[in-house]
Amino acid sequence: MPAGEGKRHDGRAVAVSARIGVWLIGARGNVATTAMIGAHAIAREATATDGMVTERAPLTDLDLPAVESLVFGGHDIQAGSVVETAERLHERNGVPDRDTLDAVRDDLATIDDRIVTGTARNCGRTVAEIADDAAFDDETLSIREIVERIRADYAAFREDESLDRVVVVNVASSEPMPTDPDQYDSIAAIEAALDADDPLPASALYAYAAIDDGHPFVNFTPNAANALGGIQDLAERENVPHMGRDGKTGETLLKSALAPMFAGRNLRVLSWEGHNILGNRDGEVLEDDANKAGKLQSKGGVLDEILDDDIHNRVRIDYTPALGDWKTAWDDIRFQGFLDTQMKLQFTWEGSDSALAAPLVLDLVRLLAHADAQDEGGLQPHLASFFKDPLGVDEHDLSRQFERLSEYVDRHTNAATTEVETENSP
Amino acid sequence: MPAGEGKRHDGRAVAVSARIGVWLIGARGNVATTAMIGAHAIAREATATDGMVTERAPLTDLDLPAVESLVFGGHDIQAGSVVETAERLHERNGVPDRDTLDAVRDDLATIDDRIVTGTARNCGRTVAEIADDAAFDDETLSIREIVERIRADYAAFREDESLDRVVVVNVASSEPMPTDPDQYDSIAAIEAALDADDPLPASALYAYAAIDDGHPFVNFTPNAANALGGIQDLAERENVPHMGRDGKTGETLLKSALAPMFAGRNLRVLSWEGHNILGNRDGEVLEDDANKAGKLQSKGGVLDEILDDDIHNRVRIDYTPALGDWKTAWDDIRFQGFLDTQMKLQFTWEGSDSALAAPLVLDLVRLLAHADAQDEGGLQPHLASFFKDPLGVDEHDLSRQFERLSEYVDRHTNAATTEVETENSP
Amino acid sequence: MPAGEGKRHDGRAVAVSARIGVWLIGARGNVATTAMIGAHAIAREATATDGMVTERAPLTDLDLPAVESLVFGGHDIQAGSVVETAERLHERNGVPDRDTLDAVRDDLATIDDRIVTGTARNCGRTVAEIADDAAFDDETLSIREIVERIRADYAAFREDESLDRVVVVNVASSEPMPTDPDQYDSIAAIEAALDADDPLPASALYAYAAIDDGHPFVNFTPNAANALGGIQDLAERENVPHMGRDGKTGETLLKSALAPMFAGRNLRVLSWEGHNILGNRDGEVLEDDANKAGKLQSKGGVLDEILDDDIHNRVRIDYTPALGDWKTAWDDIRFQGFLDTQMKLQFTWEGSDSALAAPLVLDLVRLLAHADAQDEGGLQPHLASFFKDPLGVDEHDLSRQFERLSEYVDRHTNAATTEVETENSP
Amino acid sequence: MPAGEGKRHDGRAVAVSARIGVWLIGARGNVATTAMIGAHAIAREATATDGMVTERAPLTDLDLPAVESLVFGGHDIQAGSVVETAERLHERNGVPDRDTLDAVRDDLATIDDRIVTGTARNCGRTVAEIADDAAFDDETLSIREIVERIRADYAAFREDESLDRVVVVNVASSEPMPTDPDQYDSIAAIEAALDADDPLPASALYAYAAIDDGHPFVNFTPNAANALGGIQDLAERENVPHMGRDGKTGETLLKSALAPMFAGRNLRVLSWEGHNILGNRDGEVLEDDANKAGKLQSKGGVLDEILDDDIHNRVRIDYTPALGDWKTAWDDIRFQGFLDTQMKLQFTWEGSDSALAAPLVLDLVRLLAHADAQDEGGLQPHLASFFKDPLGVDEHDLSRQFERLSEYVDRHTNAATTEVETENSP
Ligand SMILES: NC(=O)c1ccc[n+]([C@@H]2O[C@H](COP(=O)([O-])OP(=O)(O)OC[C@H]3O[C@@H](n4cnc5c(N)ncnc54)[C@H](O)[C@@H]3O)[C@@H](O)[C@H]2O)c1
Ligand SMILES: NC(=O)c1ccc[n+]([C@@H]2O[C@H](COP(=O)([O-])OP(=O)(O)OC[C@H]3O[C@@H](n4cnc5c(N)ncnc54)[C@H](O)[C@@H]3O)[C@@H](O)[C@H]2O)c1
Ligand SMILES: NC(=O)c1ccc[n+]([C@@H]2O[C@H](COP(=O)([O-])OP(=O)(O)OC[C@H]3O[C@@H](n4cnc5c(N)ncnc54)[C@H](O)[C@@H]3O)[C@@H](O)[C@H]2O)c1
Ligand SMILES: NC(=O)c1ccc[n+]([C@@H]2O[C@H](COP(=O)([O-])OP(=O)(O)OC[C@H]3O[C@@H](n4cnc5c(N)ncnc54)[C@H](O)[C@@H]3O)[C@@H](O)[C@H]2O)c1
Ligand code: NA
Ligand code: NA
Repeated sequence: MPAGEGKRHDGRAVAVSARIGVWLIGARGNVATTAMIGAHAIAREATATDGMVTERAPLTDLDLPAVESLVFGGHDIQAGSVVETAERLHERNGVPDRDTLDAVRDDLATIDDRIVTGTARNCGRTVAEIADDAAFDDETLSIREIVERIRADYAAFREDESLDRVVVVNVASSEPMPTDPDQYDSIAAIEAALDADDPLPASALYAYAAIDDGHPFVNFTPNAANALGGIQDLAERENVPHMGRDGKTGETLLKSALAPMFAGRNLRVLSWEGHNILGNRDGEVLEDDANKAGKLQSKGGVLDEILDDDIHNRVRIDYTPALGDWKTAWDDIRFQGFLDTQMKLQFTWEGSDSALAAPLVLDLVRLLAHADAQDEGGLQPHLASFFKDPLGVDEHDLSRQFERLSEYVDRHTNAATTEVETENSP
Repeated sequence: MPAGEGKRHDGRAVAVSARIGVWLIGARGNVATTAMIGAHAIAREATATDGMVTERAPLTDLDLPAVESLVFGGHDIQAGSVVETAERLHERNGVPDRDTLDAVRDDLATIDDRIVTGTARNCGRTVAEIADDAAFDDETLSIREIVERIRADYAAFREDESLDRVVVVNVASSEPMPTDPDQYDSIAAIEAALDADDPLPASALYAYAAIDDGHPFVNFTPNAANALGGIQDLAERENVPHMGRDGKTGETLLKSALAPMFAGRNLRVLSWEGHNILGNRDGEVLEDDANKAGKLQSKGGVLDEILDDDIHNRVRIDYTPALGDWKTAWDDIRFQGFLDTQMKLQFTWEGSDSALAAPLVLDLVRLLAHADAQDEGGLQPHLASFFKDPLGVDEHDLSRQFERLSEYVDRHTNAATTEVETENSP
Repeated sequence: MPAGEGKRHDGRAVAVSARIGVWLIGARGNVATTAMIGAHAIAREATATDGMVTERAPLTDLDLPAVESLVFGGHDIQAGSVVETAERLHERNGVPDRDTLDAVRDDLATIDDRIVTGTARNCGRTVAEIADDAAFDDETLSIREIVERIRADYAAFREDESLDRVVVVNVASSEPMPTDPDQYDSIAAIEAALDADDPLPASALYAYAAIDDGHPFVNFTPNAANALGGIQDLAERENVPHMGRDGKTGETLLKSALAPMFAGRNLRVLSWEGHNILGNRDGEVLEDDANKAGKLQSKGGVLDEILDDDIHNRVRIDYTPALGDWKTAWDDIRFQGFLDTQMKLQFTWEGSDSALAAPLVLDLVRLLAHADAQDEGGLQPHLASFFKDPLGVDEHDLSRQFERLSEYVDRHTNAATTEVETENSP
Repeated sequence: MPAGEGKRHDGRAVAVSARIGVWLIGARGNVATTAMIGAHAIAREATATDGMVTERAPLTDLDLPAVESLVFGGHDIQAGSVVETAERLHERNGVPDRDTLDAVRDDLATIDDRIVTGTARNCGRTVAEIADDAAFDDETLSIREIVERIRADYAAFREDESLDRVVVVNVASSEPMPTDPDQYDSIAAIEAALDADDPLPASALYAYAAIDDGHPFVNFTPNAANALGGIQDLAERENVPHMGRDGKTGETLLKSALAPMFAGRNLRVLSWEGHNILGNRDGEVLEDDANKAGKLQSKGGVLDEILDDDIHNRVRIDYTPALGDWKTAWDDIRFQGFLDTQMKLQFTWEGSDSALAAPLVLDLVRLLAHADAQDEGGLQPHLASFFKDPLGVDEHDLSRQFERLSEYVDRHTNAATTEVETENSP
């Protein structure tokens, strides 16, 4: 199959005239860059759409904004550029390959002009070290002032690019968790914290600014952001669609597919050891135990929810530079079956981390834009399958999470059909 | 947790007075023997019920016959005894362990008295070689006569043991597939074949005799048996519940859990290589390509149904004596994701083959007895999750198959509740 | 092959009349217990000698003490007994199996009478917690007094059992490393430390007492013991054979077999990640980072010595109770070959830790007794293949280490032959 | 490290003025093409020399012809070109990468002019199908005539390129083994077979022509060629250095590194299962059982030689197109240790097949040219480490094979030193 002819749908969506802005927090990072490369490569028919959930049936029946209609911009705190990140991804990992990179290099350069300095406030020591983009003086500003600045950046993007809608996506580095996140469980608590220059992490500031201004928001990271109760209340009040957290792309994806098998067969899981090695910047940041804590937390829930056994469940994440952006997860699962027999499953998963994550970013943008267009504010439980720790959703069984997505599609396509039928009926 | 206190339900079912007969075709084999060891060890509280699907919620809410109420008998064609098979399983594989074996040895000896010689007619060269139980002269009888004999064996078991119901389960060796199975797609065709002494394989004779006489029937093997259209029609006509085929215990179980993950994420599977090594008698019989063909066929459907990609899908089954009754499956899956990136998953599954299969045999007996008590004849699609090639069911997604089982339970427990409520209402 | 008929040599060694005492530090531990079970099971012809290096050619040509001639005793600091450890090993791991255990239970009970309380001085918090054998008041004694007590225990064993020779083997738990081990690099420094009640760890006290009294000594652990320079000097002065440290039984064994392959083919190793999971007491002690440090250090040298590349080399050791005494090592090796191509090797090693270690303990006892009989004092470089960190030897290539062992055998068997020939010549 | 600065030695060898011709049988194949890409990329300093044995110590001390001095030509029987093969290798496998390919494309095009049509006589059905290079009419020529033609091709290459020496390397597809190879165990038998137009396979014709004309010969394939006794005698008589057979690049390499570990530790190997999947042309040809037979045979010897156990040893080679030129070997090894405990090792090896093989081709050319310059004719046992089935050598232990290579270097560098010293002495 020639590149670009993949499983593309019939072009109907392309007709949608809306221009959708995608504002990426961490825009010069690997996931952000890979998402932008992919969107433009698809638009230029230089690649297929494998890996995009919104490009498989029945989601292709939804009236989603076209990938071609997406306009990118964003915040980052390290110097450099999307083009540089793209070159490095090509050199070190072979993804994208050279032809694809050549096809979109100019598009990326254009995006680079729309990336502005963000804030690294309360993101921990390791992130502070990489924050060499000097223009934004974090030290002197109050967090209220930082929020105003972020708000202005969102607005300028919308205005400058004549966008119909801006979806904000957090794909920045993992931050340390705030101490006692429950203290921020109301809108009032959040406002008070902002007033008091409390050590709210950057992710919460980006999320607050987005939701307060009505921009749909996706938290693809394990960061606090919209996981805080007060931000969720704000989204309810403002009727802004949002979802998170932490994209489910590797080991946790497999856990959510495999654990239901053990549960359904009444096989008692005794231990589930996961060892992840990865060699990219994300791996480097996760070397810092403070930053790793949130990641381990968001990875932890799956097994507990699906298996009611009291299992020994450990996840290791180690930085191995030779792997570049590739991640290898090795999992060892021991379980007890009939006649108290101990048995095991071991798996090795090897993927390009960003190639797994990036299409989901595009999917989420399209689906949040859809929800926003339908005035469906608040958390989006039908998007649970995309996240390690789906906010507001207890269901971790992957197939059942997919069911919810299908049901959402059914609801919207049947409604459409019904309406059409109604309209056409005499 | 002390052995025997596992996840046992509250004892309600034990109260059911019914005596259920379990007639095992291949009764001296590993799966049959392990099922009998397990049932008696559970009855003697010498082991837990891990691995039994009917012992997990919500199935524990169904009014199923108690494990303790099961009475075993069966056919085999090799000399030897269940006690000997049990000893060998203990020596070579450690399953059962010595204490468990000691606890049930006398029970097994009692069962040995109820095992009679079956037929190896049209089971292929390899099975013929192991058929050293000399009493049943296959060579001289017509297949009509063989059927009569089987019929009489079923009836005698029921009578001798004062059973309320007999469920027949085929756990005999894999046979070669009959040439052109479609020729047997009506009751008339089956009857004509019986009259003409046509080379119908033994499994079909056992199935015909069972269903024609109203005994619920399970085909745990890849054999023709009730997969033949004519036998299915007969079960419809006689309103006898039956299901098959080929218990889903290892690699195929994993495929049905993992393939939906690739499909749901729009990850294009390019190749799925499966290499199975096992060291038991089943492995020895499957060394014979004729006998292996059916197994490979029943394993083949899962991926084709779930993934619409045109994938390279090969399954190897090799006999490695050192493994004893343990089976190792190594699978290598290559898939293509975003930006045409090729990635992979590899897994190793190591289980005691019979310990995986045996609890399902007990589950199926209980569930078929339940269906029979409810007058639910014909194929039982809610049991699809138990089989590699679920007869009459296209759904191979494991989670969705489990859903069907839950829905069945819901139907029956709500019905019960409703009835009760109705009864109690003024 | 019937148990016990294995690869046993011709019985010549059995004729050797010497009674050899084996004094095990950590005698109630898994390795010690498994060594004692094995020696007695071999003596009773209840098992084969697989796994013993001294039972393969050409070592069978050496005039070694017979396994049957070994008499066991030792120190431990936890309450309990060898019989209890043996029962637990059987229950949790299946090694030994029940028949073997039954065959040697009485032998083990006899040994239990010869086990006395040792010292847990300076073995760290975790070891202190398990030291519940109350008879030996560590708190009140000076370390000189402790040494005297150990000395007396060795002497009493020799006397009571009428032994020709006692070999002391340290198979106790891993201790934290002493601060700055180089401070103990002379006999004088050791003596001064003993006088000053310096925090020398228990392993050094056991080693000092053994070597000062002329007992050959084996350090099977990563502990300081005879790795200290002063102890090595003492062994030279007293002409006592000794060797260590840390038995090479799993991952490191594989590294020493595989790393030469990469070196010999000029394949540049970029990273070597090792993840070990184990569920026994040793694993529990190694959960404590202080105790783990020594282990990681002794594991670390192999790759550095064999590969001159600057590789990323990490070893994880995690405690996973479900594994019992079984250990799984998963290693992931990335290397660069021709045309800068990155490739990889991954392996999974699954062994019963004690079954791998115990035969080596017997081998080392026999080989040290041999050296002692030949007046070969000091370090024993021909035993390098047995250790992760072979004291005084830089060679880590397993095959070359085996060569040295063969050369030792050659030297001794040719010498013997030559002597005989000389004697017979006119 | 910048490409090209790798582990290159000091340039001394570059000074050697000799022009060495490398005549590749199968010149448009993957291994040949990769060797030519690599040699030219090294000459152009576009890559490092990792993977070349002759570029590590102590081989760098030998006076070998420089990689830069190699001049390539060869035979093939399929149409196409080296440039096309190189493009395909880049597209499908990423090896070489684009920059390297660009650096050498012109060099490859020059080589393409020196590739002439060879013979596919008696290479089996599958090779016949790919033999679409129409110029050489195999059907009408006698095999004597074919030999004359090959002879002339070698001579013309030498003359046209003004070469000091031509080394012929067989890297053509695997052929079916001739029936009863022992019938060709003398020079007379070979000559008679040539006269009688006997079905000698092509590899034997290429080998005969090379050796009879004094060209050093390497058999990198499992083919008969110089494995035939008569060809070996011819090489002795003509004093021509030659070696084979079947390059040891993957699974067998690992076996020769790992099996000595089991032997040295007296661990009884019970079974060694190897499953290879690969996706290149070689894999396609090996789908044909006739062609696979020779490969399986040359892979088979290693374990038998190193382990005297009677092990269950199976090797599967399966064609999986998605892998391209990458090969994955999965091996499962069960072994028995102390107390009859069964344990296991499993490994997965993933390499670019041609990147593993190609540097060895260059090594062998350099080392055979060296032997030839030293008048060392006949088999070259010091090169055993390069081959799965080293002709004339029983030693399969990789480390010992490497020892032999080191000893060869020692002999030659000490000799050189001695000579030099002698020369310089007064
Ligand atoms: N790759 C995956 O598969 C995957 C899956 C789930 C979640 N995630 C999460 O996505 C995030 C991004 O991953 P990545 O691989 O692209 O990492 P990356 O390190 O390549 O990119 C992160 C980017 O965020 C920037 N950044 C850091 N703090 C910032 C801040 N406060 N404001 C603005 N920009 C900031 C960094 O400078 C960097 O450019 C991480 O949190 C990661 O945990 C990734
Ligand atoms: N163990 C599993 O995980 C599993 C999973 C799915 C299906 N199965 C199927 O279950 C069946 C039994 O497996 P097993 O491991 O117990 O094999 P087994 O070889 O141990 O037992 C089969 C028994 O059937 C007997 N037999 C053969 N032909 C017969 C006949 N015509 N009539 C009566 N008895 C006959 C044999 O003598 C033997 O005792 C096989 O068909 C196998 O493919 C097993
Ligand atoms: N394969 C292997 O099992 C292996 C390989 C290499 C090294 N080792 C080392 O061998 C040692 C023993 O391993 P194990 O698995 O038998 O551990 P274990 O925990 O089962 O046994 C250790 C025993 O030592 C005793 N002990 C602890 N401190 C002591 C002291 N100061 N004096 C006397 N006794 C003391 C403990 O009470 C325990 O009984 C460990 O240091 C381990 O690292 C084991
Ligand atoms: N790649 C490895 O790691 C490796 C290792 C050991 C041995 N080998 C052997 O090396 C050989 C080459 O492997 P490859 O991967 O390059 O295969 P390939 O199929 O890519 O190349 C073989 C080439 O030989 C040509 N050929 C076939 N028969 C011929 C004949 N009679 N005369 C001249 N040319 C002929 C083919 O047309 C093809 O171009 C194979 O025999 C393979 O088994 C390869
Ligand atoms: Na699922
Ligand atoms: Na070696």
